Amino acid sequence: MIKTINGGVTSAKGFKAAGTYVGIKKKRKDMALVYSTVPSYGAGTFTANVVKAAPVRWDIELTKSSQNIQAVVLNSGVANACTGSLGDINNEKMAKAVADQLGIKAEAVYTASTGVIGKHLPIETILNGIPTLVGQLDSSKETGTLAAEAIMTTDTYSKECAVSFDLDGVEVIIGGMAKGSGMIHPNMATMLGVITTDIAISKKLLQEAISENVKETFNMISVDRDTSTNDSLLILANGLADNKEITEKNEAYDLFCQALNIVTTNLSKQMAADGEGATKLLEVKVVGTKTKEEAVTLSKSIITSNLVKTAIFGNDANWGRILCAMGYAGVDFDPDLVDLYVESEYGKLKLVENGMATQYSEELASKILSAKEVIAKADMKLGEEAATAWGCDLTYDYVKINADYRS
Amino acid sequence: MIKTINGGVTSAKGFKAAGTYVGIKKKRKDMALVYSTVPSYGAGTFTANVVKAAPVRWDIELTKSSQNIQAVVLNSGVANACTGSLGDINNEKMAKAVADQLGIKAEAVYTASTGVIGKHLPIETILNGIPTLVGQLDSSKETGTLAAEAIMTTDTYSKECAVSFDLDGVEVIIGGMAKGSGMIHPNMATMLGVITTDIAISKKLLQEAISENVKETFNMISVDRDTSTNDSLLILANGLADNKEITEKNEAYDLFCQALNIVTTNLSKQMAADGEGATKLLEVKVVGTKTKEEAVTLSKSIITSNLVKTAIFGNDANWGRILCAMGYAGVDFDPDLVDLYVESEYGKLKLVENGMATQYSEELASKILSAKEVIAKADMKLGEEAATAWGCDLTYDYVKINADYRS
Repeated sequence: MIKTINGGVTSAKGFKAAGTYVGIKKKRKDMALVYSTVPSYGAGTFTANVVKAAPVRWDIELTKSSQNIQAVVLNSGVANACTGSLGDINNEKMAKAVADQLGIKAEAVYTASTGVIGKHLPIETILNGIPTLVGQLDSSKETGTLAAEAIMTTDTYSKECAVSFDLDGVEVIIGGMAKGSGMIHPNMATMLGVITTDIAISKKLLQEAISENVKETFNMISVDRDTSTNDSLLILANGLADNKEITEKNEAYDLFCQALNIVTTNLSKQMAADGEGATKLLEVKVVGTKTKEEAVTLSKSIITSNLVKTAIFGNDANWGRILCAMGYAGVDFDPDLVDLYVESEYGKLKLVENGMATQYSEELASKILSAKEVIAKADMKLGEEAATAWGCDLTYDYVKINADYRS
Repeated sequence: MIKTINGGVTSAKGFKAAGTYVGIKKKRKDMALVYSTVPSYGAGTFTANVVKAAPVRWDIELTKSSQNIQAVVLNSGVANACTGSLGDINNEKMAKAVADQLGIKAEAVYTASTGVIGKHLPIETILNGIPTLVGQLDSSKETGTLAAEAIMTTDTYSKECAVSFDLDGVEVIIGGMAKGSGMIHPNMATMLGVITTDIAISKKLLQEAISENVKETFNMISVDRDTSTNDSLLILANGLADNKEITEKNEAYDLFCQALNIVTTNLSKQMAADGEGATKLLEVKVVGTKTKEEAVTLSKSIITSNLVKTAIFGNDANWGRILCAMGYAGVDFDPDLVDLYVESEYGKLKLVENGMATQYSEELASKILSAKEVIAKADMKLGEEAATAWGCDLTYDYVKINADYRS
């Protein structure tokens, strides 16, 4: 049985963290560190953007070449993207300074940055701050939260999650933290996530698990359809749970994937709900497609439509916009078969049956949409596949946050 | 020489129009009619949305089968989309009523609707209003404007354009009208356009000309990335200019295409500038790509990015967002080669050279972006191809218009 526990990146055995202010931002915490006291495997998934920030290029290289990743150093405030070769040099300096303090190699240190594009890291400030950061490393729940706070930008709350489960009679823990969309100086919806686990698993399977996982979790959320230059999800597994190392896709692997899915789905939903300016979480389920890919495409098309997002903000059951957003998604379907539902703590309604409006109550529909978490479901009635995507409403505050930059 | 003239759908010889209020909307004009006194060829391009409104299905069929299109009847207020077989029946009734009054066949009447999805046309109201509408047909400039006004929804001004040019010693005229994004009850960015011309041209070449044309004009604008269920661009050519009929792709054809391009580009830019809530027109030029398709994809990715659009609203030269939007467009390029410029009546600035910020003045950049028409140009320096796209900023009013529906 997989159990959700109150925790984050410090929950799994052997992991410490720190989060502090070094001076990159004006006031708020701006550097975080996650550290495994013993060698661990690292894996990750990274932005598909052609324009990749320096830390993303560094992490991709380490993920290929390094057999031991023991630390992740993260900063907020400056993204270190579009910074040329000086960006790479500064990024390596940051990794090396952390490594020197910890007595490990620079090649054992993942890096991650989030903030304004096109600005160089204030590298002296960072190097001066690293001894303090390393000095504050601790395995308590509280320092895990400090780390989660230090990577926040326009996030309104920190995002953590942890689970535990039994494997071969030993307890395995997976914990994680993530940040969502926006910055003090908003620049883009930059997602960073770090997962730590004490499970013993081969590096190859760790990478496969995380690569498969993001397809149904982080890759299914959207705040504004803008794929960042810095998106990174990193996972460290140090083996301290002492289970029999997972080296093949057996039952233990499946259990690990299930537990990982709980952590990443939880963090993904927190991220979507806390999208820039958002007042509510929108969950979109598309069911009854012939292929999984079609369900994914249709659900993402709905979740990214500005017209759907503004209607949800206005508690308006404007279902034509949902049908329309599916219609231009590039998937073939029969509009005359589609059923649409909305659902929340306030009830459930079928708005559309076979492509046409039912005799639903506009008042109840609006009430349902006024909840903090709203589900919209489309049944295409063409097959057995399904997908779920998460997003948020589009509000005045989204415009404010992103237009008022530097003013 | 192609000359822009003060006119619209009634400018070309033999075309009349009308625009009036029949009672579909609460107060404002809601029906328009365009009529050629002699038989003419009709051609059109239509929404790629899988969900197609009844009038769109009707027009697609006529475009294939009918050798004579003499009228276009348009209504605003109700889109007649997602209305099943009753939608088709009502649409045909509307066409037939117009045809009966004009003494032509229903198969000579294009239809177009824009407004709320999922509602049925108030067909009795429409049928009662058609005699009035037909009775008001007139060839004056003023009735052309009435028609352009009658198809408006949340448009803040009507959109017309006309040009004239000399062909074989005779004057040829092309005039057009269009409506852009939004409705009294906003539902989606529904584009309708009608072009009239007195040129003599074969039906086949008329269709080819308009199909090629939209690739660089209407298909290059975006207000909110939501492709409507009702988008239609219709063109009628009645031959009254008395030029030698164009039946092959010769110089006369090229001249016609050039003149048509002036009309449709003008209408496209008016539509982008008048996007829902927009305060300014954004023109994006991407040059120096290896293929035309790459330039199109990159320019559209910039023009549809919410983060670019909010930055433009805030007069913020946040160039990282432009580079980022190109990065996730799905086109391969070298970020370290890219140059970026902004330009308006207030000046021109190079913001980025070879992927990194120049020493530009933020103050001047902000001043440039504060103009009513702003150009952003990206030079990829990889080839000779280029494309231009048009869009607008994303503002509080966009959210207001689309969230406050029915409130």
